[in-house]
Amino acid sequence: MAAGVSAAGSAAFAANPATPVQTPGAGAKPLPTAVQWKDASSLIVHSSTTVELKRGSFGSSGITPTDRLYLRNNLPTPDASIMAEPEAWEVSVEGVRKPRTLDVRTLRTLGVETVAMVMQCSGNGRAFFPSKPSGTPWQVGAAGCVLWSGVPVRAVVEALGGLADGVIFMTGTGGEKLPEGLDPKSIVVERSVPIAAMGDALLAWELNGSPIPLAHGGPLRLIVPGYTGVNSIKYIRRLAFSTRESDAHIMSHGYRISPPGAKGDPTQPSVQEMSVKSWITSPGADAGQVRSGRTQIQGVAFGGLHAVSKVEVSTDGGENWQVARLVGPDLGKYAWRQFALSANLPTGTHTLVCRATDQAGNVQPRERMENAGGYNNNSWADHGLKVVIA
Amino acid sequence: MAAGVSAAGSAAFAANPATPVQTPGAGAKPLPTAVQWKDASSLIVHSSTTVELKRGSFGSSGITPTDRLYLRNNLPTPDASIMAEPEAWEVSVEGVRKPRTLDVRTLRTLGVETVAMVMQCSGNGRAFFPSKPSGTPWQVGAAGCVLWSGVPVRAVVEALGGLADGVIFMTGTGGEKLPEGLDPKSIVVERSVPIAAMGDALLAWELNGSPIPLAHGGPLRLIVPGYTGVNSIKYIRRLAFSTRESDAHIMSHGYRISPPGAKGDPTQPSVQEMSVKSWITSPGADAGQVRSGRTQIQGVAFGGLHAVSKVEVSTDGGENWQVARLVGPDLGKYAWRQFALSANLPTGTHTLVCRATDQAGNVQPRERMENAGGYNNNSWADHGLKVVIA
Repeated sequence: MAAGVSAAGSAAFAANPATPVQTPGAGAKPLPTAVQWKDASSLIVHSSTTVELKRGSFGSSGITPTDRLYLRNNLPTPDASIMAEPEAWEVSVEGVRKPRTLDVRTLRTLGVETVAMVMQCSGNGRAFFPSKPSGTPWQVGAAGCVLWSGVPVRAVVEALGGLADGVIFMTGTGGEKLPEGLDPKSIVVERSVPIAAMGDALLAWELNGSPIPLAHGGPLRLIVPGYTGVNSIKYIRRLAFSTRESDAHIMSHGYRISPPGAKGDPTQPSVQEMSVKSWITSPGADAGQVRSGRTQIQGVAFGGLHAVSKVEVSTDGGENWQVARLVGPDLGKYAWRQFALSANLPTGTHTLVCRATDQAGNVQPRERMENAGGYNNNSWADHGLKVVIA
Repeated sequence: MAAGVSAAGSAAFAANPATPVQTPGAGAKPLPTAVQWKDASSLIVHSSTTVELKRGSFGSSGITPTDRLYLRNNLPTPDASIMAEPEAWEVSVEGVRKPRTLDVRTLRTLGVETVAMVMQCSGNGRAFFPSKPSGTPWQVGAAGCVLWSGVPVRAVVEALGGLADGVIFMTGTGGEKLPEGLDPKSIVVERSVPIAAMGDALLAWELNGSPIPLAHGGPLRLIVPGYTGVNSIKYIRRLAFSTRESDAHIMSHGYRISPPGAKGDPTQPSVQEMSVKSWITSPGADAGQVRSGRTQIQGVAFGGLHAVSKVEVSTDGGENWQVARLVGPDLGKYAWRQFALSANLPTGTHTLVCRATDQAGNVQPRERMENAGGYNNNSWADHGLKVVIA
């Protein structure tokens, strides 16, 4: 007979080995005003600017619906009035031979491209650091794989005569209104990435087939595939090619890989490119009943700058591994792949873990890299899921 | 200087050579109750069961957001109560060695796959038939490219011991509640496709990363990639492998390619596989101002059972053609490709047309195939777009 219908188990629960799964219900915070349109039942609200997707709500489609995409804004969401005339939004382009301010209407004439990419907060997985770093305790849900459409930055640079001599950084500056009385450099969202990142970068006006919502950076967002979310500047007002990295605080001292206990400073590595990573999303992640017998162990895997080549799954905490199959269309190297392994889980306790390898040969490590900010956690052990089938 | 910013034109309008673009505003019908959550501003409401996407609202992302996906239901949408326990929804599988009724919870254990595919109503493009066939006068918007996730029908058949001997059709029966007092065969939504279509078919519970909404066939829908929408049975209650085609009226007399003036009958070809097709979506489709100068002519192209290999664009109604570039990730052979051609349009009148070729060598024809029902219109001439730049 069909497997999976033979010996149904009874109640079960699921928990990450390190951190209990946060369940909805009493005490759940309401959705922030700017994202009232999101699917509350699939999200965990941390604060008015931080919302993550529940581990059991990733689905199997490969693309994260916009109403399930995590939210993490460094500054309060701008006033909705900036969306009144999206075609008139302007970005100043500097560090090219013919610097110029261009509106969205004009950008649309210069080219169009679409990229599927993982957008992930630098601190995704922070909740699994036993040191409890300050910052949002993201579990797995500060990440999504989405489609961005806009004009390639390359096409804009070409239309403006090419890059100025000697530039080695691409710097984006956000258009958020800054509080008065503070040094703008201490608060502005401004990030620099190596000029090589320009290759696949977009100035985007569309997210998953619709205009980018305000909370996600509309009318215009700089998209830097393969880099952590903070590098994809929302409400972009200035795109500068430069010989120096930005001296804004968020660049010089924020998002640095600092030794445990230390503060960020410019001598430390910056959080930029993402690393190979995967996690299991089913079964057991949604705190629902898991039955014994046949199941499809599912999850997502990505490689940052390189496509995923392999995902291995273990049901015994990493003692024995099996290669999972990749599910659905390949959306390109910056996207994640859904994976699935058909398995038979008897009654008892199972620790499900997964481990991704990318096409450059990087293998997801067992251990996290300790750092003060709780960044870049791609430990496969930390991302395990304990499933008890009674 | 950057092209496209030099000589801005003034007002412009856009119209299909055959049929004026329907504009929103006064007289627009409200969204049907079952799809109140859709994006009204991007849709044209024909009736309580027929809604299409505006030509200017396809975006560039390759995937159609669920809130922009067309709606076409042959029967009234079932009561929302069928969504109360989606995991308990049952489908009876017949024509296998071990026939059995399976619930969604069990289907999930048997396998999982995701397919990106064009879902298109058989009558999309009917508005361009000068004969004005009865039926919804769809322009281009009774189509979308979406992601479906579920269990491969193959895996279900395998779990049930394989196909019974001699079966050559796969027949799906919808679970809509039928009006009393009528012969069920005269009204039930039941369609047969050749058994070969089983190869990539799914029993799906997820659309674009979320549970399938009621209006689109949730909790469970049969998905038959490459076939027109009517063959992907909503609320599927019965999946039968059989030696004969269904004798339901919608199969025997509906959706037939009948000579102009004739009625459908079983001797005529059935509307099943889709044909190679494309249309332009920008500029000019949204009735907004089109400026002279550089522009990106964009659209979508698909091949039904075969991937698109080439799209050509003409700005003079088909006198001269240029090959467009394909935009965004390749989502597989059942998906459509976005395409774009960088062009310079001076003031004046331009008739934009496009023509797709699939990997089997099929070329989108100039002329529609006349038929009584107004089905399968893939004429490139009919789908042209006249743009006047003043």
